[in-house]
Amino acid sequence: MNKKQLRVEEYVEGILSGNRVVLSQAITLIESTRNDHQLLAHQILERCLPTIKSHLRIGITGVPGVGKSTFIEAFGRVAIERGHRVAVLAIDPSSRLNRGSILGDKTRMEALSMHPNAYIRPSAAGDSLGGVARKTRETILLCEAAGFDTVLVETVGVGQSETAVRDLTDFFLLLLLPNAGDELQGMKRGIVEMCDWIAINKSDTNPTAAKIARTQYNNALHLFPRKENNWAASSSLCSAINGEGIEEIWDKINEFLNDMKNQGFIEKNRQQQSLFWLHESIKQELNRLFAQSPFVNASLQRLENEVLTQKKAVSQATQELIKLFLNEKI
Amino acid sequence: MNKKQLRVEEYVEGILSGNRVVLSQAITLIESTRNDHQLLAHQILERCLPTIKSHLRIGITGVPGVGKSTFIEAFGRVAIERGHRVAVLAIDPSSRLNRGSILGDKTRMEALSMHPNAYIRPSAAGDSLGGVARKTRETILLCEAAGFDTVLVETVGVGQSETAVRDLTDFFLLLLLPNAGDELQGMKRGIVEMCDWIAINKSDTNPTAAKIARTQYNNALHLFPRKENNWAASSSLCSAINGEGIEEIWDKINEFLNDMKNQGFIEKNRQQQSLFWLHESIKQELNRLFAQSPFVNASLQRLENEVLTQKKAVSQATQELIKLFLNEKI
Repeated sequence: MNKKQLRVEEYVEGILSGNRVVLSQAITLIESTRNDHQLLAHQILERCLPTIKSHLRIGITGVPGVGKSTFIEAFGRVAIERGHRVAVLAIDPSSRLNRGSILGDKTRMEALSMHPNAYIRPSAAGDSLGGVARKTRETILLCEAAGFDTVLVETVGVGQSETAVRDLTDFFLLLLLPNAGDELQGMKRGIVEMCDWIAINKSDTNPTAAKIARTQYNNALHLFPRKENNWAASSSLCSAINGEGIEEIWDKINEFLNDMKNQGFIEKNRQQQSLFWLHESIKQELNRLFAQSPFVNASLQRLENEVLTQKKAVSQATQELIKLFLNEKI
Repeated sequence: MNKKQLRVEEYVEGILSGNRVVLSQAITLIESTRNDHQLLAHQILERCLPTIKSHLRIGITGVPGVGKSTFIEAFGRVAIERGHRVAVLAIDPSSRLNRGSILGDKTRMEALSMHPNAYIRPSAAGDSLGGVARKTRETILLCEAAGFDTVLVETVGVGQSETAVRDLTDFFLLLLLPNAGDELQGMKRGIVEMCDWIAINKSDTNPTAAKIARTQYNNALHLFPRKENNWAASSSLCSAINGEGIEEIWDKINEFLNDMKNQGFIEKNRQQQSLFWLHESIKQELNRLFAQSPFVNASLQRLENEVLTQKKAVSQATQELIKLFLNEKI
């Protein structure tokens, strides 16, 4: 396949027939910052939208060292055995000081990546969480259009990316270690609150500690008020490396899914997510237009200087620049 | 003093004379969501701006349990003994699920809060990190106008608020415990990277572990590339509860301050921060205007519905809404 850019119809046809080379090329368009690539990507997406059939979108988080790759490999195999096609994506807003990529390591999930019913995509890079989230959202839709009905979105348990992943998925799974200390629990409290299930991985390395941890986490989960869907989040033990407890988690998630589908909560949740991302997308577009405005750019440096020399407050300079931005339309 | 609203001149006069009741009232205006309060707050700020003399702005972070309150109490006393006046603020963007305030507990820092040369302000609540950061930034300026030349900005070590605190301060101090495990270090890597100093608090509880931790952290800090200012971040042991190592940290920070002032880095860093916050402020204002636009609001529900029923992609609906927002100015 040559690298020449395809026409919209060719992309759509390739994606809908499950051609993963074309899928990857379309995702690359989504990730591009070029305007013509963006336009093309959105035309492709728009055409794919009505065809999408999605079984399940799962967010998976956990700190480095918890065994996420091994878990996803084992979990993905179970999903494939149950007749699904699995895509694995990652959200990884690079830190402002040190850029990196959690799925950049090509040797990860080697067995899964070779399977014809799996598709693994390294994480999108980006300056802002919003930008990375938009790319991930559109990538999920394209993967689903290509027949990958089960999408796993991975993130590291360190920042605000958990919130983004939760807002992109139906079910949010938190991986923890059996020996998590008190301080760690404090740090992750916000994440524990938003998760639908806790899997205590590597439980075979310390079964006693793992059981104690499960009791502690279950007690903690009971303290949080139930969400609107009334799902009772709980925890279970697993060991991804030898496959223990993985099928049980798959079954539990599908129990959740059936339960929630019957009550209309999956659909309702996805609708709320769509609205949330619509408004995020508007914010990003406003910022982009402002930055490109010639009227703004003609005065920006002067106003920046006035702020720097404490002649103007930030709020005053803001008002003047916004006026310039909006008046250009007169 | 009655609760009737003062005139701009009365606020400015009260603040510049160090009247902390008036200062608190002005900060309440900054935190208000009412337009008239915001306008008044900005008029006050604008008048105070030229008078501001700031010695030092320090960001302090650490997970719950690390002893931040006790540290700030001890550290604040040292600063006061050295002739400074100290304000303590906090950044605490409440989680979306469970609102809370890290400085809400009135019993914290009791001794410091009683001191005539100290001013403690509970953290501003807010829906967005950007909003909380703006309020904190303007509060810092008002505190400085009121003669509190040393401002400590506290945050919990769990989210993105560290980035905001770093972008509001001259020096970023990270508090850690002597027994921090490997996993914790993984989680906090981004924070370790951005800090200027690590204070290993509660070192008296486990001196051996504390010394090992110091060696480990120093080794880690050496691995990061130096920042533009060429400051060599390092770590030291302390015990806030019995005052050990606190004066040394104050001296170290002032060594940093003199060193950086001589090279112009404090000024340069503050200027970069001002520009950063100017652009943040513009983003917030654009979003506010969009949400209030009658042209947008007349079509928003229809377009939202089209997104919900998968008739339109998010990107398409975004373009249409942005056009409505901007065309209203024609």
